[in-house]
Amino acid sequence: MPTAKDSSEVIVFAPATVANVACGYDVLGFAIDEPGDYIVARHADKPGLRITAITGDDGKLPLDPEKNTATVAALDLLHHLGMTDRGIEIEIHKRMPFGSGLGSSAASAVAGAYAVNKLIGEPLSKMQLLPFAMTGEASADGAWHADNVGPCLLGGIVFIRDNDELDVAQLPVPKNLWAAVVHPDIEILTKVAREILPKDIPLANATQQIGNLGGLLCGLIQSDYGLISRSIHDVIAEPRRQKLIPDFYKAKRAAMAAGALGFSISGAGPSVFALCEGKEIAEEAGEAIAKVFNAIPLSNQVHISPVNQKGVQVVDKIPELK
Amino acid sequence: MPTAKDSSEVIVFAPATVANVACGYDVLGFAIDEPGDYIVARHADKPGLRITAITGDDGKLPLDPEKNTATVAALDLLHHLGMTDRGIEIEIHKRMPFGSGLGSSAASAVAGAYAVNKLIGEPLSKMQLLPFAMTGEASADGAWHADNVGPCLLGGIVFIRDNDELDVAQLPVPKNLWAAVVHPDIEILTKVAREILPKDIPLANATQQIGNLGGLLCGLIQSDYGLISRSIHDVIAEPRRQKLIPDFYKAKRAAMAAGALGFSISGAGPSVFALCEGKEIAEEAGEAIAKVFNAIPLSNQVHISPVNQKGVQVVDKIPELK
Repeated sequence: MPTAKDSSEVIVFAPATVANVACGYDVLGFAIDEPGDYIVARHADKPGLRITAITGDDGKLPLDPEKNTATVAALDLLHHLGMTDRGIEIEIHKRMPFGSGLGSSAASAVAGAYAVNKLIGEPLSKMQLLPFAMTGEASADGAWHADNVGPCLLGGIVFIRDNDELDVAQLPVPKNLWAAVVHPDIEILTKVAREILPKDIPLANATQQIGNLGGLLCGLIQSDYGLISRSIHDVIAEPRRQKLIPDFYKAKRAAMAAGALGFSISGAGPSVFALCEGKEIAEEAGEAIAKVFNAIPLSNQVHISPVNQKGVQVVDKIPELK
Repeated sequence: MPTAKDSSEVIVFAPATVANVACGYDVLGFAIDEPGDYIVARHADKPGLRITAITGDDGKLPLDPEKNTATVAALDLLHHLGMTDRGIEIEIHKRMPFGSGLGSSAASAVAGAYAVNKLIGEPLSKMQLLPFAMTGEASADGAWHADNVGPCLLGGIVFIRDNDELDVAQLPVPKNLWAAVVHPDIEILTKVAREILPKDIPLANATQQIGNLGGLLCGLIQSDYGLISRSIHDVIAEPRRQKLIPDFYKAKRAAMAAGALGFSISGAGPSVFALCEGKEIAEEAGEAIAKVFNAIPLSNQVHISPVNQKGVQVVDKIPELK
């Protein structure tokens, strides 16, 4: 049992993620710098895993470790390691809205597994933590897809060849790729966003989507911004899910007019994202999108970020709430 | 009108191509070294484009330039250049079977456009010839997809993001990637092979296919043979089209047992291909596949080839028939 590298307490930050990325439904996602969730894990004398505090959840999250996404992931890890009798206390500090399309439950699950793994001396690598974080997220979401958990854990742009087999690959990130992510203050449950999708789609649409996903991957790998831009189209989920987001196409037009490479729904929504070449265009696109929501009026938060290449990480402290 | 670089006669060779490549239905194809079609183009005094000879077609191909795939492509090019009054004679030497799934009509169309372009001093680049070769192939096939014409023209592995826009990209070819392509002597019309496909497919299948296509592209770009192998699966066309090919799954098992990375139908079939790491495995896979067809018995031709990186090219002469 690893003890040498044990520390008494670790604080970790798990970032928000943009899943689907237009044409990559269930197979592509990337991490951004903020927002994200913080989790503190510390040793305790009393055996077993306990949640001692949750903040930022408006009282919505369960304190029962077997029901909370973060600790379901951590428990699955401890079970795998035969260490469920370890005394560990967990604090969860949610800094991301629920049902936002920013991978909130994925961030908690990743943070839970990663914090406990760190606390007990890091027996597993990040990649090895993937299935445990997935178990945590699936406990909240019901579905099994790694397009949030993958990039949240590993950082960068993550492509998932097969969700069942957890066959994932990190893609190189073009140097100047930025995102404007805007979260309008409405809630969409992933379940509802999934039910709005048809069970069958035209083969012609699948071929289009396959062409665009392939184009996006080639564009990302080869830093070809033109190809990236021509490829960011979703003919499957976006046309149906946009109905759940007020003035979606108006926001899209505004982002594209501001010079974005592409614009679509982040995960199941309601957050939207614009991929951009450079920080400046991302800021302009973010502003343009916010303006559309403000005019409704629909309050919203804008996040401008490069692709976060680190994923979940240990931090010194939890920053004060702004 | 370009004359300086005119030569009195050009002979070109256009190679066979493997389209679809399992998970890349209508969006991916690669060229092989042989078989292929030869076309001779030469200047003539009498204005207009004429076909003076066709060999290897068992009399099946039309001599009318407006009906022959090769000259439809060439005429479309000449029309674009405002040069339809040029006196040009064309000889077509088919060295590929019809309805073989090896891109026979694409090869003729590419050869026609390329030969005439060369003869008149090469006013257009290979990439610029793509739409004219496409017109030629569409005249035979009825469909508009560049996964044969693209690699036949450009060489290498070609990905087509969008067939309508002809947005194509050449992928890097892993150094030691070989193919065993086996053509059993039955004929499948592309039209029939298309009609066997459903109009709608389950979204879950589309997601699987998208994951595999993305994995295959990443694997090819990053020379990751493991990822290539895990990705070569077609859940859309192969399960339906395999019925048209006797003992398809037996041949697949034989190829995989011989060490192939993957095995599927070439284009619309009946040809099948095994992608392999190295010439030796490709030879073993080719032999194993042939053995399955021989046992039926079903005569067949085996072609062992690396990915042909040149595409259509000028040659000195037409080799003797073996």
